[in-house]
Amino acid sequence: MLDSVLIWADKNRGRWLEDLQQWLAIPSISAQQSHDADVAAAAEWAMLNLRGIGLTAEMISTPGHPCVLATTPVGLCPLHAPHILFYGHYDVQPAQIEDGWQTPPFKPTKKNGALIARGASDDKGQVHAHLAALLAWREIASELPVRLTVLLEGEEEIGSLHLRTVMEQCKDQLKSAQALIISDCAQFAPGVPAITCGLRGLMYYQLDVQGPEADLHSGLFGGAVANPANALVEMLARLHDGQGRVTLPEFYDDVVPADEELRRQWRNLPFTDAQFAREAGIATAFGETGYTTLERRWIRPTLDINGLWSGYQGPGAKTVLPAKAGVKLSMRLVPNQDPLKIAATFEAFIKQITPPGVTVTLTPLGASPAALTPTDSPAMQAAVEALKIGFGQDPVYVRDGGSIPVVGWFKQMFNLDAVMLGFGLPDDHIHGPNEKLNLDGYYAGIRTAAALYDLLGKKLQDG
Amino acid sequence: MLDSVLIWADKNRGRWLEDLQQWLAIPSISAQQSHDADVAAAAEWAMLNLRGIGLTAEMISTPGHPCVLATTPVGLCPLHAPHILFYGHYDVQPAQIEDGWQTPPFKPTKKNGALIARGASDDKGQVHAHLAALLAWREIASELPVRLTVLLEGEEEIGSLHLRTVMEQCKDQLKSAQALIISDCAQFAPGVPAITCGLRGLMYYQLDVQGPEADLHSGLFGGAVANPANALVEMLARLHDGQGRVTLPEFYDDVVPADEELRRQWRNLPFTDAQFAREAGIATAFGETGYTTLERRWIRPTLDINGLWSGYQGPGAKTVLPAKAGVKLSMRLVPNQDPLKIAATFEAFIKQITPPGVTVTLTPLGASPAALTPTDSPAMQAAVEALKIGFGQDPVYVRDGGSIPVVGWFKQMFNLDAVMLGFGLPDDHIHGPNEKLNLDGYYAGIRTAAALYDLLGKKLQDG
Repeated sequence: MLDSVLIWADKNRGRWLEDLQQWLAIPSISAQQSHDADVAAAAEWAMLNLRGIGLTAEMISTPGHPCVLATTPVGLCPLHAPHILFYGHYDVQPAQIEDGWQTPPFKPTKKNGALIARGASDDKGQVHAHLAALLAWREIASELPVRLTVLLEGEEEIGSLHLRTVMEQCKDQLKSAQALIISDCAQFAPGVPAITCGLRGLMYYQLDVQGPEADLHSGLFGGAVANPANALVEMLARLHDGQGRVTLPEFYDDVVPADEELRRQWRNLPFTDAQFAREAGIATAFGETGYTTLERRWIRPTLDINGLWSGYQGPGAKTVLPAKAGVKLSMRLVPNQDPLKIAATFEAFIKQITPPGVTVTLTPLGASPAALTPTDSPAMQAAVEALKIGFGQDPVYVRDGGSIPVVGWFKQMFNLDAVMLGFGLPDDHIHGPNEKLNLDGYYAGIRTAAALYDLLGKKLQDG
Repeated sequence: MLDSVLIWADKNRGRWLEDLQQWLAIPSISAQQSHDADVAAAAEWAMLNLRGIGLTAEMISTPGHPCVLATTPVGLCPLHAPHILFYGHYDVQPAQIEDGWQTPPFKPTKKNGALIARGASDDKGQVHAHLAALLAWREIASELPVRLTVLLEGEEEIGSLHLRTVMEQCKDQLKSAQALIISDCAQFAPGVPAITCGLRGLMYYQLDVQGPEADLHSGLFGGAVANPANALVEMLARLHDGQGRVTLPEFYDDVVPADEELRRQWRNLPFTDAQFAREAGIATAFGETGYTTLERRWIRPTLDINGLWSGYQGPGAKTVLPAKAGVKLSMRLVPNQDPLKIAATFEAFIKQITPPGVTVTLTPLGASPAALTPTDSPAMQAAVEALKIGFGQDPVYVRDGGSIPVVGWFKQMFNLDAVMLGFGLPDDHIHGPNEKLNLDGYYAGIRTAAALYDLLGKKLQDG
């Protein structure tokens, strides 16, 4: 049966692409209130698509953006089929053409074998590969090989603010799940599929520094008034040393030293710093002394400024002593670092180093722990085989420097380990301008998903 | 004759105000190309106004914004009247209602005895006080008491980029000037008129830091790619210590220690830190250890961030590793500090402390030396008497933390010392939102200017 499903899925590539382009055209930017209606429209689109597969789909509203929950009605899968949970997100990062996009971010454009659009790789395109595979099963086999629950959220890009509440609310539907599938990551390299068995956590803050009530003349007042921008850079500089290490007190205390066997394996992956530098658009890789590039991204915590502002940003000179300065910054955390403990240390340290004459307001914008998943489960083995079918290549086990908060929460609440397999590529420019999804990966993803649900249906009944 | 002029000037206050409001309504923001036509319109307005006084006025074009030059035709002043030069500027700082203006910045609004508009105090309103006084002389006496040359520029707020060239070009008209009058400063306090006999210099730079070619995902790349915002704050923090001192090498080497007699005089001025804090909109004054607030503003050099930007500045969280970061910063220099020497040290130091993985582009946006003028000249004595007539109060000698590049250049090129007398107030919010000019000061300024030209006509003929 799988063969027929794959053939039909391959035949309908034009349809999948058209369908996905529709979804990508909705600017579901969760961070920007002006796009609230678009976020709702993208949720609606997903709900209708899930209903088209035959699933029972509904919108779960939250004080923020809604989740979409779909379950398998009786008759759409074999009676004793295993219960599989698929998680994805339909919201996207902010994007404006002025950021450097060569085509409008919400007008999906095919170019050089890729689809260019905000959300193409993160995460609509990858979610859609699953939706396409499920529809193929429904069309060819009249049923799905597993009892599927689909949970799509609209706040992944802003810290999954209300997802835990929704998970609590839907506990009864979710708790019997035997495996969790997520496609919100990437292949290791073109044609080298990967299973992601570790993620970094995230701690995101905004700091607002207030100096004088209003902007002042820097000549008349400069030297006698604390400058909030001067104060901010002074504080921020105290968070790093010159060797790429974070100097926040106790920051590394709970970090587990890297496993030597793992480090050895990673050194054998098809990866070079030169290729990484090309993908990242940099002259040369840079980071913490004593670690390779993959280690710096996978198992070392970071602290990065994500946004910075103060005073006059226009052309020419304006001799203003600014009233305000601000920063958005985030820490990527690794297994065994406790986000709450780090948050407390961070807030205390910021208070301690706030210079005289300014006041600082700290706003947390998301926190999630790192995740590690074992590779020996039947679900993981199903993923290995499915990727081999989808891509025609053995996958490698990797980690991902990004964060998917839900992974830690599913572990906590339901003791579920996530099987993470991605169809994107490391150079997809997710979160940046010109985000893309290579069509090869997308189509291989559809095949992989079709095979995965088939294998899960067999292996988890076996197990 | 002066009495009649003053009476007529006082009678026509409504006319002056209406006239000034017209000029202020033109958003002549020299820093922003989109306002080029407005800058030209404000120059045109000034030229026509000068012609209305009977002067021979013309536009001097430059590669940037034009200067307006007006001279006194034969017959408009006594044959042997002294040659007096008046300098001012008609361009203004950027202003947008979103910056915190309570009324539109280019819709001049009368409120609480003040006129609120960008440029009201800096410098259109103060220039206009002179224009009004001159027209009063013309109307009542049919001639001016001095042979006047008026030079108005349109690039003061962006570093007087082309003024030196214009000064060279107009050398023949300017070189015989016996005194230079400037009103681009303030009274010391309400009803305490002041003569400014020292200015700080200015050195303004923009630094652009480039990291990766495009914004990257901070999870996937963070830790392995140099973050230009992290790099920038690290560099900027190295320019100050925690005691308000600038740590740029050799920065204080040429600073002359404060004169103890002057410091004693300044301590007797009607000034308190509490009042200053109120005017500045701060909780408490802050600055270099070992100096009073007036000293920090008048005789100590500074380094202030004027603008700062990188990455995502919108609402919520965006986990972006930014491609670029930038800063605008300026140093205020004191007498005996050489701007070119400081610039060379600064550029070398920035190169030296640029961390690996980023490139920095330095763009100078203006440089001018500090100025000091002697108080014993006949022109200075004329100003003292004129302020007494205009304000009914003896003036005090003060310095100003701001910079007027032209002052140094007139000294260099024509050995002319500037007589600086201002009609604004320290809390005029120049360069910030809700800039204002108190009408009391404006009207007293018109009277002062009327008296000043009369006294200069007498004293400089005497001398």
